[in-house]
Amino acid sequence: MRTLIKNGTLATGSDLAQADLVIEGETIALLGLDLAARAGPFDRVVDAAGLYVLPGGVDVHTHLELDTGATVSTDDFATGTRAAAFGGTTTIIDFAAQPKGGTLAEGLRRRHEEARGKACIDYGFHMVVREVTAGTLAEMDALCRGEGVTSFKLFTAYPGVYQVDDGALLRAMQQARASGGMILVHAENGHAIEVLVEQALARGEAAPRFHALTRPAVLEAEATGRCIALAEVAQAPLYVVHLSAPEALARVREARERGLPVHAETCPQYLFLSRPELSRDGFEGAKFVCSPPLREPGDAEALWRGLSLGQLEVVATDHCPFDYAGQKERGRARFTAIPNGLPAIETRLPLLWDGGVRAGRFDVPRFVQLTSTGPARLFGLYPKKGALLPGADADVVVWDPERPVSLDQRDLHMRVDYSPYEGRRAVGGPRLVFARGELVVEDGAFRGRAGAGRYLRRGPSGGRG
Amino acid sequence: MRTLIKNGTLATGSDLAQADLVIEGETIALLGLDLAARAGPFDRVVDAAGLYVLPGGVDVHTHLELDTGATVSTDDFATGTRAAAFGGTTTIIDFAAQPKGGTLAEGLRRRHEEARGKACIDYGFHMVVREVTAGTLAEMDALCRGEGVTSFKLFTAYPGVYQVDDGALLRAMQQARASGGMILVHAENGHAIEVLVEQALARGEAAPRFHALTRPAVLEAEATGRCIALAEVAQAPLYVVHLSAPEALARVREARERGLPVHAETCPQYLFLSRPELSRDGFEGAKFVCSPPLREPGDAEALWRGLSLGQLEVVATDHCPFDYAGQKERGRARFTAIPNGLPAIETRLPLLWDGGVRAGRFDVPRFVQLTSTGPARLFGLYPKKGALLPGADADVVVWDPERPVSLDQRDLHMRVDYSPYEGRRAVGGPRLVFARGELVVEDGAFRGRAGAGRYLRRGPSGGRG
Amino acid sequence: MRTLIKNGTLATGSDLAQADLVIEGETIALLGLDLAARAGPFDRVVDAAGLYVLPGGVDVHTHLELDTGATVSTDDFATGTRAAAFGGTTTIIDFAAQPKGGTLAEGLRRRHEEARGKACIDYGFHMVVREVTAGTLAEMDALCRGEGVTSFKLFTAYPGVYQVDDGALLRAMQQARASGGMILVHAENGHAIEVLVEQALARGEAAPRFHALTRPAVLEAEATGRCIALAEVAQAPLYVVHLSAPEALARVREARERGLPVHAETCPQYLFLSRPELSRDGFEGAKFVCSPPLREPGDAEALWRGLSLGQLEVVATDHCPFDYAGQKERGRARFTAIPNGLPAIETRLPLLWDGGVRAGRFDVPRFVQLTSTGPARLFGLYPKKGALLPGADADVVVWDPERPVSLDQRDLHMRVDYSPYEGRRAVGGPRLVFARGELVVEDGAFRGRAGAGRYLRRGPSGGRG
Amino acid sequence: MRTLIKNGTLATGSDLAQADLVIEGETIALLGLDLAARAGPFDRVVDAAGLYVLPGGVDVHTHLELDTGATVSTDDFATGTRAAAFGGTTTIIDFAAQPKGGTLAEGLRRRHEEARGKACIDYGFHMVVREVTAGTLAEMDALCRGEGVTSFKLFTAYPGVYQVDDGALLRAMQQARASGGMILVHAENGHAIEVLVEQALARGEAAPRFHALTRPAVLEAEATGRCIALAEVAQAPLYVVHLSAPEALARVREARERGLPVHAETCPQYLFLSRPELSRDGFEGAKFVCSPPLREPGDAEALWRGLSLGQLEVVATDHCPFDYAGQKERGRARFTAIPNGLPAIETRLPLLWDGGVRAGRFDVPRFVQLTSTGPARLFGLYPKKGALLPGADADVVVWDPERPVSLDQRDLHMRVDYSPYEGRRAVGGPRLVFARGELVVEDGAFRGRAGAGRYLRRGPSGGRG
Repeated sequence: MRTLIKNGTLATGSDLAQADLVIEGETIALLGLDLAARAGPFDRVVDAAGLYVLPGGVDVHTHLELDTGATVSTDDFATGTRAAAFGGTTTIIDFAAQPKGGTLAEGLRRRHEEARGKACIDYGFHMVVREVTAGTLAEMDALCRGEGVTSFKLFTAYPGVYQVDDGALLRAMQQARASGGMILVHAENGHAIEVLVEQALARGEAAPRFHALTRPAVLEAEATGRCIALAEVAQAPLYVVHLSAPEALARVREARERGLPVHAETCPQYLFLSRPELSRDGFEGAKFVCSPPLREPGDAEALWRGLSLGQLEVVATDHCPFDYAGQKERGRARFTAIPNGLPAIETRLPLLWDGGVRAGRFDVPRFVQLTSTGPARLFGLYPKKGALLPGADADVVVWDPERPVSLDQRDLHMRVDYSPYEGRRAVGGPRLVFARGELVVEDGAFRGRAGAGRYLRRGPSGGRG
Repeated sequence: MRTLIKNGTLATGSDLAQADLVIEGETIALLGLDLAARAGPFDRVVDAAGLYVLPGGVDVHTHLELDTGATVSTDDFATGTRAAAFGGTTTIIDFAAQPKGGTLAEGLRRRHEEARGKACIDYGFHMVVREVTAGTLAEMDALCRGEGVTSFKLFTAYPGVYQVDDGALLRAMQQARASGGMILVHAENGHAIEVLVEQALARGEAAPRFHALTRPAVLEAEATGRCIALAEVAQAPLYVVHLSAPEALARVREARERGLPVHAETCPQYLFLSRPELSRDGFEGAKFVCSPPLREPGDAEALWRGLSLGQLEVVATDHCPFDYAGQKERGRARFTAIPNGLPAIETRLPLLWDGGVRAGRFDVPRFVQLTSTGPARLFGLYPKKGALLPGADADVVVWDPERPVSLDQRDLHMRVDYSPYEGRRAVGGPRLVFARGELVVEDGAFRGRAGAGRYLRRGPSGGRG
Repeated sequence: MRTLIKNGTLATGSDLAQADLVIEGETIALLGLDLAARAGPFDRVVDAAGLYVLPGGVDVHTHLELDTGATVSTDDFATGTRAAAFGGTTTIIDFAAQPKGGTLAEGLRRRHEEARGKACIDYGFHMVVREVTAGTLAEMDALCRGEGVTSFKLFTAYPGVYQVDDGALLRAMQQARASGGMILVHAENGHAIEVLVEQALARGEAAPRFHALTRPAVLEAEATGRCIALAEVAQAPLYVVHLSAPEALARVREARERGLPVHAETCPQYLFLSRPELSRDGFEGAKFVCSPPLREPGDAEALWRGLSLGQLEVVATDHCPFDYAGQKERGRARFTAIPNGLPAIETRLPLLWDGGVRAGRFDVPRFVQLTSTGPARLFGLYPKKGALLPGADADVVVWDPERPVSLDQRDLHMRVDYSPYEGRRAVGGPRLVFARGELVVEDGAFRGRAGAGRYLRRGPSGGRG
Repeated sequence: MRTLIKNGTLATGSDLAQADLVIEGETIALLGLDLAARAGPFDRVVDAAGLYVLPGGVDVHTHLELDTGATVSTDDFATGTRAAAFGGTTTIIDFAAQPKGGTLAEGLRRRHEEARGKACIDYGFHMVVREVTAGTLAEMDALCRGEGVTSFKLFTAYPGVYQVDDGALLRAMQQARASGGMILVHAENGHAIEVLVEQALARGEAAPRFHALTRPAVLEAEATGRCIALAEVAQAPLYVVHLSAPEALARVREARERGLPVHAETCPQYLFLSRPELSRDGFEGAKFVCSPPLREPGDAEALWRGLSLGQLEVVATDHCPFDYAGQKERGRARFTAIPNGLPAIETRLPLLWDGGVRAGRFDVPRFVQLTSTGPARLFGLYPKKGALLPGADADVVVWDPERPVSLDQRDLHMRVDYSPYEGRRAVGGPRLVFARGELVVEDGAFRGRAGAGRYLRRGPSGGRG
């Protein structure tokens, strides 16, 4: 199967070129001028005049079919990856988790079972570590070397559930460094938040907005700084997930200016939404409950600056959808029972294009870096993923910079009963999406299939690819 | 009893004046010109021509007769306060400690017993809090209101011994704020240090210098920043004891520039000694083991700058002497068994005068602020202590700016078998020391008596006096 | 003549004391307890119960009878110093100026003539330097050593009038350092402003508000940073007058943190007024035209923080009054013809007390530092001025912290036809003002006399006194 | 003419790919897998196994045949561009200069004449502006729109020769912004340096090392900050040439973090050499005289950090060679007569590869950004230059990462009698260099010809390409 995409503007993490591109089988085979004449014949010819040709999106932070203990996120690997493809994302990294009292291997095995045969795009796993013992450390090494799981997520939040102490975090960082892996941290101060939550509830402050008020930015900045300090001691690379607060970004920036290998992602919800959403009438604010919480209006500007200057290297989604009906509503009596998370896997690229490229905050190559090349390089997927060059997997998006994209729930494909962006729209979206050479989305119609996606054994994380 | 001190240069926290001073009983009664003629007769006349007249030193961080569990610091309230007086210090604040599983009241009662009848200068207590329960919080309030104990020390270090978690720290800060008290923190990351220590010992790194290498500056800076964040959430004042690292100072400075009521002290050992001391031949390095450890050569310059600019408000001692023979030596096999602490209570003022005033880093009023007025105001002792004005307690030092002060053990009066400054000397020291009007030191001879010192019920801490 | 001020709270730059104070002749003679009984008899007894007793205000930036070339500021040394006294200020430093093409000595002589026999409080002079030649440098030395003029003002603004180039500035700084003097700078980028003004006028932007818009904060910050750099090269102390912009303060702060002897003052207009005043209806905005211009609403908060933390060391007035009628009005056609300056000499202390002490931004000792002790020490007046201690000149203010002070023109005593604070009032003002022992203001009535004030030969500037 | 480069690692500003590349005529035509089989036949086949294939170097700061008034730089457009090609550089931007009292057009015309028929690689011109009048501003616009000269260099240094005042600089910036151009600044404080130089010479400090001592880093930082401030007022992009001091970089970094379009280059001499070189025995130090001067040992680390983090966007050379014999020697009596400048055009890429890529400070894509893609985009050359993608000019370098490169004068090709790196060598250099499809260097042999290079009319400068 040979596909020609002609007349488009090819975009990479640093360049733009008016040129044609040929896909052969699963792979990008050629970039060139006038390829219709030179390199035919083709099974399929796409005229991309006026359009951009981008490497497929890489979303390194998703939670499909996540069992929180109380409930399960609504998208599974079939519906979630299908929605991802609709949005131009062709690779995800989701999470396997060490069960309480169990081994990493056990957690990975279970997760493989949940994903099997469902994904329509390629996927990998980070591993969530709950307990750091000598056994865990040995398993981390085994996963890095044998399973292509080279990134491990630990939490400074959620005491009693996920939170580990600083000694455990330090040990895990040391191990990650030794094994070619990288630690991801959810950085908020869990013990302090626990106090604030308990005090808020004792005062009868149980509405959704108190979720945000009991998780102040200063406690994200603190934990971010703490993780950086521990990583400095461990001489290990660090990746801060879902950075939301300018104060936390300041810590990342300072670390990078001292030469430390500290990396951070933010998510669209922190760029496009803010705390007042949690005060919507009735219980509607629950739709916007996630952790870290949405921050103050105006705070996003510092994040945009960070994206532009390279202080933030990735935009991922933290996609973790829960229905309003039946799930978010569990927290009507107290915000602590609201499952945390927002649907985002489908809308990432259109939102970031609109707010980033169209708004003049950065250029197309930077967009590619943030959504594809950057995360692929950080997490050992490059150059199979994240590159629009010969030899790379043919994860290719033909992108229409003028395409209006509805952000209403009814027009989206995530399996969830609301959209946080209801009534808003973005300009800029995919016309065609190829996943390893297969056309999976064509002008809003799904052409892929569950099970086509493969598990990705990743190389070392934390390097530059 | 009326004493005239004439012809001296009176020094306060902001001013210098050529004038005379009259003490009546326990109190400063008059400052004026030509008082010999106007205000006589006097029982005693001191000619202070060429000398400074200073308010007595206030040392808010001492550990007399401290039981570490394994051993006891060598100076008790008699010997320690006597040595303090020799050095020009007329007030100390030492620590009472909540016993494991016990109440604050119990800890305070025991400490009163240990001090009773011994001190030759006035003294107060901070309270060390090990566990933060509802009962503890109620006791904190009671101590503030009823006992004049308005400051509480908590630790982010020493897991299993003193360390509390961040939730406990936050609650204590909230209570301190409500009760007119202030939290003191020993800010180092205990869990991370525990890992480093264990790993060092496993590698056979057991010599004294590894004490310092397992407590890196970044872990002090981290914990300092964390305590500041918690204090910001609690909207409470914070006092950082024994700040040693420039990186930690940076956190304090940033906090102050954002208007937070964050205060910090440093100690002479961090200004005059550095890490290479721990590598002295044989086991001599043990003499310099304290926590936080001595930092890198050159680091002190940032602390001096901080003292000069008001970023650091207090120089206290953390006086905690242990004999080399029999005590420090307990750690020959492994540095973890070396009792932490240095003798300092006697040498604080001469060292600071020499390195600060004589070296041109700051002026005499700043010296007075750092050693007397500042700490007195922060800890509810002012204006009885820390002031050289009518109505203040007659804690008065006649200071000879040219007096050579030996720092050798044999010439000092602390009950300990070594001096960290052996072979060095300072220029600048007390000729006469008055404690509440009584002459306690006269040209190197002790004239005071154990038991003359009184317990100080302090007013609210954390304010500006 | 002996005066007793009893029962007051004496306030110095670091201390507060409940004590009595005795003035003998021109001098503070005694501070003490119960002096009515001990030290009488007295010619005059003041009961200051409930009141503060402060060292008289020192205003180091005034422009009395300033000839701008086009007009003359309205207050002369008689009316201006009288108004100063009403406001609690007992010392001023005004400016003598090198005439174009003339010598410093000539400028000083003229200024002495203008002041002679008029001032009712003591006064000194800074010297404005327009041209830096070998002769000027020699004269600077002579003025420092022989005339008690130890501070020299140069401008980076007003090309063709006062502006000097950076080489001249550097030479003057070197000379100041050598002679024990200090350079004052008016720091705005004159050439850039000239371009902006010309362009604004060409666009027909001639109203008062364009005065501010053509002098943006970034050009003050730039010039401030430039002067600091030159002073660093010269290794000389620097004093930045009328600092108005947070961005400029940032430069000062950074310099101080690097240990440079950089000092800065701000003025009440930058603390209490902001740019929207220049847009008042009609031509009223002209009343608020000064240089640097009033800054944005909210900017003052950074200045207040700077005053509190010691980054800003002085609040002076830049008092330079022009009548609205006949003077300010000269600029109706174009803002460039509006004489620059505001009346301020009388209202400094009440405003700063109200906004600083009453508002909880700093305490009374800091107020004394900023208005009296600090400037006196910086400009070689200490300890005669700026001190409330025996031996100091008896410049003493009995201050009522609850006194309502009208800021309306009709209630003030400056010779000018408007008040920038019309309709506002401050709380906190002087009850009694003594100038060198003489009662000059008593409950709102003037008791002093023109000619009583003496010229002050000052000691070296720039040190700490 | 069709050339295949096969089996190499293609490197762009963001990517690496194992792929083949085809050149057709002057243009890159194809990138692809296995092109020998698919896309032949070829006139020339290069096996690049184990080698990198890079876009040709773009050096935006050269001074060929520069007439300083006193002498002329040794390389002309023939020898200089030939040496550039030897080093892997295929495009330069040199400078035309407004003659004193003349027009920009006149300067450009003269420079075209000097270059005509000589260059063997493509070249463009920046325009040096000495005087800013209405006429100059109009000419700037004409050059931008009609001549492809879209960048203008002004100086804050060299009073009486090149220095303009801040008003002129501001006006030029405003014009550049309006015309799609960008201002380049040589940022040092000329007036202050003039004073220091005069004083040094008066003290008899005439040796080469005093060149550096009279141009301290603080005066570069000052001028850099000043230019940034003026650019902020003008809302114009700014490009700082030859940034040498960490203090100046700090200003650039702060500006960028505030979102200002401020760009900066550094040069190899500031990365690899330092001030002690100027103190070499005899008069050898003269070989290292350039402006800004070499900075302190250790300072380079901050520059490397800046290159890695994107704070510095370009490494150019400021190539300005003068023979030691006869030219540098003119300054034996006084350093002010030493012509300023170093030979660098040939050694840029090997040095940067060695110190950057091999030393692990950054990766190959970053190397490409700094030396090719970045400068091409900033100066309106992209995508013809700076891109390794179809449609770009076939400026292609086949780079051997292990090639030892002698830095001795005898092994280099610049027309100058010494090398600043004598005795040192770099690892990493070009095997083959293609300029617009023509092989100009082959394994150390020159295959190009003078006159083959064309003048480049550039698009707008300052954007992102």
